Parts: sequence; structure tokens; C-alpha cells
Amino acid sequence: MLTTFSKNETQNMTIAIKLALQGRYGVKSNPMVGCVIVKHSKIIAKGYHESFGQAHGEINALQQINYKAHGATLYVTLEPCSHQGKTPSCAQAIINSGVKKVIIAMLDPNPLVNGKGVVMLKYAGIEVKIGLLKNDASILNQGFIKRMQTNQPFIRCKVAMSIDGKTSMSSGESKWITSKVARLDVQKLRANHQAIITGSGTIINDNPLMTVRLDGVNSKPLRVVIDSKNQITDTSLNIFNTDAPTLILNPDNTKVLASGKLDLSNVLTQLGNQGINNVLLEAGPKLIGAMIKINLIDEFIIYMAPILMGSDANSILNLVIKDMSYKIKLDIVDVRMVGDNIKITATLK
Amino acid sequence: MLTTFSKNETQNMTIAIKLALQGRYGVKSNPMVGCVIVKHSKIIAKGYHESFGQAHGEINALQQINYKAHGATLYVTLEPCSHQGKTPSCAQAIINSGVKKVIIAMLDPNPLVNGKGVVMLKYAGIEVKIGLLKNDASILNQGFIKRMQTNQPFIRCKVAMSIDGKTSMSSGESKWITSKVARLDVQKLRANHQAIITGSGTIINDNPLMTVRLDGVNSKPLRVVIDSKNQITDTSLNIFNTDAPTLILNPDNTKVLASGKLDLSNVLTQLGNQGINNVLLEAGPKLIGAMIKINLIDEFIIYMAPILMGSDANSILNLVIKDMSYKIKLDIVDVRMVGDNIKITATLK
Repeated sequence: MLTTFSKNETQNMTIAIKLALQGRYGVKSNPMVGCVIVKHSKIIAKGYHESFGQAHGEINALQQINYKAHGATLYVTLEPCSHQGKTPSCAQAIINSGVKKVIIAMLDPNPLVNGKGVVMLKYAGIEVKIGLLKNDASILNQGFIKRMQTNQPFIRCKVAMSIDGKTSMSSGESKWITSKVARLDVQKLRANHQAIITGSGTIINDNPLMTVRLDGVNSKPLRVVIDSKNQITDTSLNIFNTDAPTLILNPDNTKVLASGKLDLSNVLTQLGNQGINNVLLEAGPKLIGAMIKINLIDEFIIYMAPILMGSDANSILNLVIKDMSYKIKLDIVDVRMVGDNIKITATLK
Repeated sequence: MLTTFSKNETQNMTIAIKLALQGRYGVKSNPMVGCVIVKHSKIIAKGYHESFGQAHGEINALQQINYKAHGATLYVTLEPCSHQGKTPSCAQAIINSGVKKVIIAMLDPNPLVNGKGVVMLKYAGIEVKIGLLKNDASILNQGFIKRMQTNQPFIRCKVAMSIDGKTSMSSGESKWITSKVARLDVQKLRANHQAIITGSGTIINDNPLMTVRLDGVNSKPLRVVIDSKNQITDTSLNIFNTDAPTLILNPDNTKVLASGKLDLSNVLTQLGNQGINNVLLEAGPKLIGAMIKINLIDEFIIYMAPILMGSDANSILNLVIKDMSYKIKLDIVDVRMVGDNIKITATLK
């Protein structure tokens, strides 16, 4: 039977999703979760998972009302956990509080856990409804969901290019292709990722900081460099400053090799095993081409500057496609202006 | 003193502009012109210039009320003509009709005529207001205005490309990069131009029809082929069918040569001299590159398909730009989805 939801229920879940988002810089390996408790049509408590290792969203909400929620309805963006981890089981805390009804946006994506929290709640006689704003709740935790299902993080590839698809001049010159507003947007994008991957070429040529520089935002994504040829030796490079952690993956320190080169898929699994849910790929044409070739990219964020750079400039990806039948198909998810740049969000079809 | 206009006046001019647009397939070398006559706050007549050589918009409106418009206000999108041409002077007809007030969106762009119609009207004691919705009225006749001022048509360059800025595979394969909906949009675009320019390479490789194929639309743009090397000899090519006129420009039949090659700027002046207001450039990377290099393109219409074609494919323009300081700057005028394609309208900065 199709579960239906009222306008009121949808409004409350929307609030829970907005709350969840507030945890975006803190939850790290964990999912973002928001929770709203409603009694007699009034919100009596709100909470979200704020920080890795700290209380879950449901507990933060229940605490506000001293764990007393007799007859209330609890809205939560992700299925409450059934197991005691770093904190007590949320399902148990909900049961103990006297909540009468629980509305859940989506089940736990971990196939080993999926549905167990719901079983606990139902067994305790609580009415449970599932699936309200499921899509929005999934987008919230794209990375966490993918990692739970595949052990690999969600890979978002950021590209700054001209209208004719170029990222640098033949000389290598590439600074300030995009506008100041677009570059600020990239800073926000970085802040929402746990790691940023690039290749040794970018590090050697551009010596980037690869950090988040946004007032009031404390996000320090891991800087990951793919260094297949052991080229990163100069410790005065900006990536070795103390602003954020850095991981250089080279044949010497890495077991993830395939035919003498770094096995990119394995690199991602390694990052997934470290609890990294989402990665921003900010790389040159070679690494982007290699990642696309083995289908490792989930989403592209393209900043397109209103310029033409000409036929001698370098394209966004090094990847030979001989025949139109092998073209790579994308789905355009969003197109908007960011200053005078066009920002395109697209997923691989 | 700044002329101000009321909401009512703006509404009437908006109607006149919409009327003008109805002439888009018929006016050819002439401007599109719409006219509305208002008396006691009611529209008593409407007209537009329908067809080259036929009555102007003002005359078509006046005819409806037997040229009797005593005390009325006449709205017209372009300054009424002062000279007797193929038809009687519109300014004189307006004066004779008894109109009390004339509101004009913009003056005649021809510097030799500009303002003369207004002088006639004012001399006859008619109140004249100028500049209402001038921008909209200018966009209506971009091509006519440019030709009046420079003797050259307005050049709109249409490009169909992948997200990575490619228009064909290295093999030359290029069919169906864009979607069916985008291709229908191109048909509408073609219909709004008096000529379509391409290069001999496109003709030889793709053997295109270069015609408008739209139900109910009778528009037959002149097919112009730039054939610098006298390569178009096969008369069984589609461009030689009788569906539309064709003009092959080669060193044999053309005086517009510079250092042995066709002088593109001169080609455009030749087309302007033939009364062509607007040209759609649908060409390969070479001709587009050559046109950009000497700054001949006014506007780009880019259909971007949600695909990646890879680094071996051909870019949209052959033009070497060595240094970022020489990059070509554009202004994005409009971005919208056409089916699953992104349509970008941009002008040269």
C-alpha cells in the first residue's frame, strides 16, 4: 500500500532536513540527520547531529524535552539506529520517551542495518511511516549512502573552463579563468567535502593551497595527491603546510597499484575505508580522463566562464573517444548563473 | 528633459511590438514595424508591415479606419518614413488622418533619414514622444539597424557542441550531437534569417540541405557557401536543389578577394548591399575561427548537448590564442534548457 503524507507532515520533515544540513561541516564519516518532535500540532523539540562522535539528531531533540515525549510524533531524516555505538541506540531512546508515532524520510542505507531500527520501533508498538521526502533526504547524504553501499566515496568533479571547453593555455596558464564569484562558490563546494583529490601535475605546476578559505567555516578536507611517479618531493610545497592534513599516494607508500600504476578505484576504496563519504576532484585533464574512463565520477560541477580560449588550449579531459557511439552521456541536473559564469551540475548517465 | 511614459502607453507599445514580429518571415530587407491606433483609451486599429514591397505598418493600421483618426494617438515601433518610396510617406498619411499624438519606440537607424519623419510630424503640429520600449524595438530589428549603420548584416553564429566544446569526432562524424528538440529550435532560428553562411568543407563532408523545414513557415534563406578553393563543383549536391536560392562565393565569381583568399568582411558587405539584414553562420571550426579573428560575429547561439566527446574530437573553433590576455570575452545574454540541451546566447564583449 502506498504511504501518503499530509501537508503538515511534509512541512515538519522539511524543517528536519534543513536542521540536518547544519551538521555539514561537523559530521564527517557520519550521515547528517535532523529531527523534529511535534505534539498537539506544535514543534516541541528540534535537534540535529552536530559533530562526529557526539549525540545523534534524535537524542539532541529528546534532550531538550528531558526525554519526555509522551504521545508525540517524531520526524527524522534517517532511520534511527538500533545498535548502541558511540551513543545509546536512538530507537531505544525514542521508545523510552513515549513517542507515539515516528515518520522517517529514508531507511539506513547500510544493507546490514537497513530496517532494524524500524523493527525495534514497531515491536514497541510505535506507528512508523517511511518515505516522506525521501529524495531530499538522499541528496543530503549522497556520499554516506554511496559509501555504505559500495565502500567508495561519492566523487564530485569540479571543472573550471571556457565556453569552448578549455582549462588552460598550451603554456599551462590557467589562473583566473573563472570569476571571483565562481571561485567563492568553489570554496563553499570544497567546505562540503571531506577530501579533495588532485594529481601531482597540478601540485607541481600550480602549487595550490587546496584549503577552504571561508570566514566562519571550519572545514579542513584531506588533501589527497595522486603521485604515480613519486614526483612530490619538495616539502616546501603549499600542500605540506599545517592548514589541513595531506595524503600523498605514491607507489612507495601505497599498496593500491595495478600494473605499476596507482589503481584509482582502489584509492577510492582506501578513502572510503577511512570514513570519507565525499570527495571533490579538482584535477587536470589527465586524471579527470582516467577517472571518467573507469567510470569513477558521480557528478560534475562545471563553472563555465564567458570566454573562448581557442584551439591550442588544453581541453578539460584527456580521453580519446574514437566513435560517437562511445560518447559519454550526462544528465544535466541544474544550470544557473554564478556571477557571469554558468554553473552546470551533471551526473553520469 | 527625460521623456516619461504611462503604464497604458507601455501596454499599447508592447502590443505594437508583438504585431511587428508577425512580419518576420515577410519583410526581408525592410524592418519589422508594428502600429496601434488608440482613441478614447480604446484600440481602434492595428497594423504591421507584412511583406517586402507592400504597405508599411502605419498604413495597414490607418486603412482599417479609412485613414480617419481625428484626435487619436498612434503608437509605432519605428519612426514613420518621411519619403515616398514604394509606398506613400507614412508621416504624411499620419498627418492627413488627423492623429493628434504619435509615440515612437525608436528613430530610423539610417543616419541619412534619422529624425526626418519626426520633424515632419512636429511641423504639422502633432505631439511626438520618442523612446518608449526602445530596447525591445531595437532587438526586433538588430539586423536592419546594423546594416543601416555599417552596410553589413548582423551575424549570428550557431554552434552545436558537447559539454567539452567539441563539434565532431576526429573521423568527421558529427550527426545528431544535439537532441531533436534542439534541432527543431535551429529550424526556427534559420527561419528568422535571410541568409545562412557555411564553408565548402561542411558542404562537401555533410551535404546538408540548409533549408527551413517547418510546417506552415515560408522562409527560404539564401544559402551562401564560402568556397575559397573552388571546391564546390558537384551540382548534384543538396544545396543546388530548388528549395532555396544558393550563392557560391569563390575566387572565380567574386571580386571580394584579399591576398588570394575571400575577404570575409567584404563578403558581408556584399550581402548587406543585397539587402540582407541578418545571417546565420552554421559552419565548421575553420570558418568560425576566421570570422572571430576579424571580429565579424555579433552573437553566438550555442546548443550544448549533455555529452563528452573526448580529447581527440574537433573543437568548435580553429583559432590559436597563445596568451590568456588575448582570450575572447563574451557576455552571456541568456541560458535556458531546450529539451535536454543547454542553449546559451552570448554576444562578443
